[in-house]
Amino acid sequence: MDINQSHSIGVFDSGVGGLTVVKELLSQIPDAPLIYFGDTARTPYGIKGPDTILRYSIENTKFLISKGATIIVVACNSASSVAPEKLRNMFNIPVFEVISPAVELVVKITTKGRIGVIGTRATIESRIYEKMIHNYNKDFKVIGQPCPLLVPLVEEGWLKARETKMIVRKYLRPLKQQQIDTLILGCTHYPLLKDIIQQKIGKRVKVIDSSSEVAKKVKTYLKLNNIVFDNKERPLHQFYLSDISSVTKEIAIRFLGQKISIKKAISAL
Amino acid sequence: MDINQSHSIGVFDSGVGGLTVVKELLSQIPDAPLIYFGDTARTPYGIKGPDTILRYSIENTKFLISKGATIIVVACNSASSVAPEKLRNMFNIPVFEVISPAVELVVKITTKGRIGVIGTRATIESRIYEKMIHNYNKDFKVIGQPCPLLVPLVEEGWLKARETKMIVRKYLRPLKQQQIDTLILGCTHYPLLKDIIQQKIGKRVKVIDSSSEVAKKVKTYLKLNNIVFDNKERPLHQFYLSDISSVTKEIAIRFLGQKISIKKAISAL
Repeated sequence: MDINQSHSIGVFDSGVGGLTVVKELLSQIPDAPLIYFGDTARTPYGIKGPDTILRYSIENTKFLISKGATIIVVACNSASSVAPEKLRNMFNIPVFEVISPAVELVVKITTKGRIGVIGTRATIESRIYEKMIHNYNKDFKVIGQPCPLLVPLVEEGWLKARETKMIVRKYLRPLKQQQIDTLILGCTHYPLLKDIIQQKIGKRVKVIDSSSEVAKKVKTYLKLNNIVFDNKERPLHQFYLSDISSVTKEIAIRFLGQKISIKKAISAL
Repeated sequence: MDINQSHSIGVFDSGVGGLTVVKELLSQIPDAPLIYFGDTARTPYGIKGPDTILRYSIENTKFLISKGATIIVVACNSASSVAPEKLRNMFNIPVFEVISPAVELVVKITTKGRIGVIGTRATIESRIYEKMIHNYNKDFKVIGQPCPLLVPLVEEGWLKARETKMIVRKYLRPLKQQQIDTLILGCTHYPLLKDIIQQKIGKRVKVIDSSSEVAKKVKTYLKLNNIVFDNKERPLHQFYLSDISSVTKEIAIRFLGQKISIKKAISAL
């Protein structure tokens, strides 16, 4: 067994949403030191163009590497759809993203080949899920639905509000009419609304949470590469945000389910 | 009469919301050439801290000056609450903002001295309207209400949706209970929801739109300083956004009520 303490998992997201991925990593790989960078000064990415998102992703990765990251997890769907390949070539480092793990699962478990995907406008318009699913099977029907209001509703903490339920129902109606059998939550904010989403789409539809799937992938990679962390001491995690307001901290706690100490840092070096 | 063609009005906002101010400027000062910069790559500012907003405002002003602006209008409430004084000192140029014109009007027309203000979380938490209103009269009661969901609802184009009406009513309920007599729309996106807001707050409450008030201020300034524009030819306006997505253009047209040609530019020089 090769105990390698020099490894750290760097996670970046456009804001605090990626903390749902951190939560899964902490739960599945409790001994790994994590470095999180949330680009709250430039959040959200979902409404921005691919060039801008790529530029931000490169800057964020540079920042995480400068803080000691040896493995990168892109915990943002908008960035996952444009950046990973470029980041791998540029930095020669393992880069995980939140799209392919969900795709690999969905193609296995779909029964009728009717797959729904919800996400920000950028994620849905990129048709990235559709393209990746069609690499497995061109006959699968992929129905995308942009849900731009869900991120602000989550960040507002309106997790059980009547308005949130109405808006979720409105967004899911076309997917229900299309009789999907599986639904991918294509945005890191959505796991916080998983119960309402499951309720509105119906219990026969299998809802897939990317956060949990990407954490499984990272765990498998560590095992295959014999990377084991020292579990005698609690790992030191680092949390950075590019902007910290009174609300951000509150939201971070809501996402992670525990208090953390956050430092301010600007990714553009 | 002094025809001075070298003057241009530079307007910046965190995104496309400031186009409601441009619309008012075009209508009240039709001969003035305008330069608009919408920082869509880093939008929204309303959820970010004062340091970050100030840094962005300085970069945006530099950009507008580099394009020929001789007068600056800060068409963003979050930036108006932290940046104008610093920008005036730094660039030695007239800087208008969207807060004081609304304040000057409200202190004149309030009948019971019970003033409501709605805006983003940053604007409301800064208590800037309250401080400025208290400079006129310390007895006026100012009741602030953050309405963070209204910006994404407007940008989604849900201007008449049932959910929007419910959310507006929910946000305005505390102000109604406090029996306000005047209501300041403290965010450039809100004029697009003015009808719903007026309906939900009740017709006895006078609703004040900052966009229209700041345009009046600029007009008066031009008159006092004898700045007259050549009205033989149509003025050349310039529109820049730091990120252009398929949605941004659509939203820009909705705000301005007319088609414009937009260029991409990054403010950080």
